Amino acid sequence: MTDTIVSSATREVVMGFDRPFVMIGERINPTGRKLLAEEMRSGDFARIEADALDQVAAGAHMLDVNAGIPLTDEPALLAQAIKLVQSVTDAPLAIDSSITEALEAGIAVYEGKPLINSVTGEEEVLERILPLVARHGAAVVAISNDETGISEDPDVRFEVARRIVQRAADHGIPRADVVVDPLVMPVGAMGTAGQQVFRLVRKLRDELKVNTICGASNVSFGLPNRHVITGTFLAMAIGAGMTSAIMNPLHPEAKTAVMAADVLAGHDRDCAAWIRLHRATGEAVGRRRGGRRART
Amino acid sequence: MTDTIVSSATREVVMGFDRPFVMIGERINPTGRKLLAEEMRSGDFARIEADALDQVAAGAHMLDVNAGIPLTDEPALLAQAIKLVQSVTDAPLAIDSSITEALEAGIAVYEGKPLINSVTGEEEVLERILPLVARHGAAVVAISNDETGISEDPDVRFEVARRIVQRAADHGIPRADVVVDPLVMPVGAMGTAGQQVFRLVRKLRDELKVNTICGASNVSFGLPNRHVITGTFLAMAIGAGMTSAIMNPLHPEAKTAVMAADVLAGHDRDCAAWIRLHRATGEAVGRRRGGRRART
Repeated sequence: MTDTIVSSATREVVMGFDRPFVMIGERINPTGRKLLAEEMRSGDFARIEADALDQVAAGAHMLDVNAGIPLTDEPALLAQAIKLVQSVTDAPLAIDSSITEALEAGIAVYEGKPLINSVTGEEEVLERILPLVARHGAAVVAISNDETGISEDPDVRFEVARRIVQRAADHGIPRADVVVDPLVMPVGAMGTAGQQVFRLVRKLRDELKVNTICGASNVSFGLPNRHVITGTFLAMAIGAGMTSAIMNPLHPEAKTAVMAADVLAGHDRDCAAWIRLHRATGEAVGRRRGGRRART
Repeated sequence: MTDTIVSSATREVVMGFDRPFVMIGERINPTGRKLLAEEMRSGDFARIEADALDQVAAGAHMLDVNAGIPLTDEPALLAQAIKLVQSVTDAPLAIDSSITEALEAGIAVYEGKPLINSVTGEEEVLERILPLVARHGAAVVAISNDETGISEDPDVRFEVARRIVQRAADHGIPRADVVVDPLVMPVGAMGTAGQQVFRLVRKLRDELKVNTICGASNVSFGLPNRHVITGTFLAMAIGAGMTSAIMNPLHPEAKTAVMAADVLAGHDRDCAAWIRLHRATGEAVGRRRGGRRART
């Protein structure tokens, strides 16, 4: 059993093998969102506030916050975004940047214990990020690639993850504070992408005993009806033992698949969350309600 | 690798670990379908013909045919239903009855190699059904309960399955012709029902090396939005290694979950079936079409 705890000033979220899956809202990220990028660049953060509230209302337990806009003062933007998001919701945050100074600026204003997104197995990145994580007592996303790139062999990626966990330990960061991302490729481009992740997640859980995370939307890139592919991927990943994902809870296919998978994995005691969801939304989920006999 | 082959006069369907999941239409069954039962009792089989065609059009690879109506001549009804279904479709059939004489009557008129549904681990049933399966060179569904009932312990159910496979071998029936049903309970009544099945299916595949089947709809009995629970269950079961199910392909949630899971399990080469499905149905699946960037 490995519990990863993250928090805001007033709320804790726990990832664990027998706990409900942790949905981390992906929307606060200007990558590929031209309008949001332009607004942020001009100092207009209204959409970030709306995205935060919408995702939490849709069921996100945490929010990822990224301010990666080229040719801007990313540290200042990220700090501003984090302050704003923490002023409107108590959901714990993943502070998401590839720039150390931006992570530092985000951590400096963050209230609680954040999830730092991310470190890789690259030597230079390990030495840059792990001291930061250790100093602030944060948790960190460990992406299973290194200087040689992303291996197509899940066993190689497992070894990268193992090395990051060891290096984190050298810095005094406990295993529970390292959440491994097995790296999800688009299944339309690489047919084995799903199998690789399921196999790797099972191994990460059984052998390395770490919690896991992924950017789920990538798996369905380029395919028709992609939100069903993403939702089905999430359900199968939960079956394999994945414990969290950065995803879009506003897509009902993804969210209901996660919640149904929690029921089927035995993580939703007495189906309470599932029943509450459908009591709250009634027919709004757009599907027939149940309670009928199997054959009608 | 274990390939289970069933056939009609002109078509073969193969179940196997790395093959597309075999969807077996559940609709031709008067249990809980009062109107169908009344019609069959009065000799009106029009609905069976329509159910056969609809399910095949919806993607069923095989059809289950059951004529279990109390106080009727079930052998005659089942034979008549099978002849009719085989006259309108070349999908191979599962001949489904708890009455030996009905199975015999069904087999007598069947063209091809059927799937006999079912045998259990009960001594009396084994001795009744296995000789019939052996004599006709059929395949058989092996349900993992015995005289002591249905164990809540997956390891006990595994041992029942192992015993059925051994007993089948004593009758000259190869392992490939025994398709094990791990027994699916309603998850609303037994919170561990999903986990039990996933664990058992993985073990049946890895250790006993048999193909697997289940009645999928039962898992969601009594829950709201049940077709999403059923579809998510099927996807997770495919992730665990299940190779077929008796299910309703007319429910898009179940069918698309199966087809998406085939993509993610690497059983749909180049995503060809998935892409074909959406080319054929366009927006008829009721969900946005994809091809967009992950973040918009």
